Amino acid sequence: METQVPPREKCESADVDEARVRETQEHLIDGLTATRLAWTFKALSDPTRVRIISALSHHEMCVYDLAAALGMSQSAVSHQLRTLREMRLVRFRKEGRHVYYTLDDAHIHDLFHQGLEHLNHD
Amino acid sequence: METQVPPREKCESADVDEARVRETQEHLIDGLTATRLAWTFKALSDPTRVRIISALSHHEMCVYDLAAALGMSQSAVSHQLRTLREMRLVRFRKEGRHVYYTLDDAHIHDLFHQGLEHLNHD
Repeated sequence: METQVPPREKCESADVDEARVRETQEHLIDGLTATRLAWTFKALSDPTRVRIISALSHHEMCVYDLAAALGMSQSAVSHQLRTLREMRLVRFRKEGRHVYYTLDDAHIHDLFHQGLEHLNHD
Repeated sequence: METQVPPREKCESADVDEARVRETQEHLIDGLTATRLAWTFKALSDPTRVRIISALSHHEMCVYDLAAALGMSQSAVSHQLRTLREMRLVRFRKEGRHVYYTLDDAHIHDLFHQGLEHLNHD
């Protein structure tokens, strides 16, 4: 039922609901926050990075195991992990000679799953 | 503590944790799902679109009120709404001569707020 194109809006200046506009402006995020948030979503807008998040959503992993699980080269996985780290979606810890990657916080886990549920919602 | 660059991974082939790799592969999303999910996040990777989602996260709005709240032209807002509609992040309903836009489902609301909480988590 939502496949049709919306009809051309016929609002006139006099139709503006000023109370609603003011109420909206009170809770609207500012430009800097919007830019930072868009940047976070941009980090998730790549299929390989989304699959890395999928892999890390259950437990931490080292680059070598990630590469084996994804069927990718270690250098390709390292490259995407660097981007994800710079964008603060993953972090790492050292243990002996190993480096383990994990999601930066629980919100990244939730972002991933909310996105999946949206895909499956109808 | 996470600002340093991770040391070069020193895993060898023999270090691969095969049980972990298999377990990861069992729950890993497939390539098509990853592409669709990345596409959803791409729709959210623009500051103006994120602000529209912010405005719609409280109540439905017509294009004219959205333009007034965001301080943008009606045509610029219409353009971004079209993208958001095509990417299934917003939908619309007609009521008389008005067209009201709303978030496509509760997951979009949650994606927006999880993203905001991630930005504020430290």
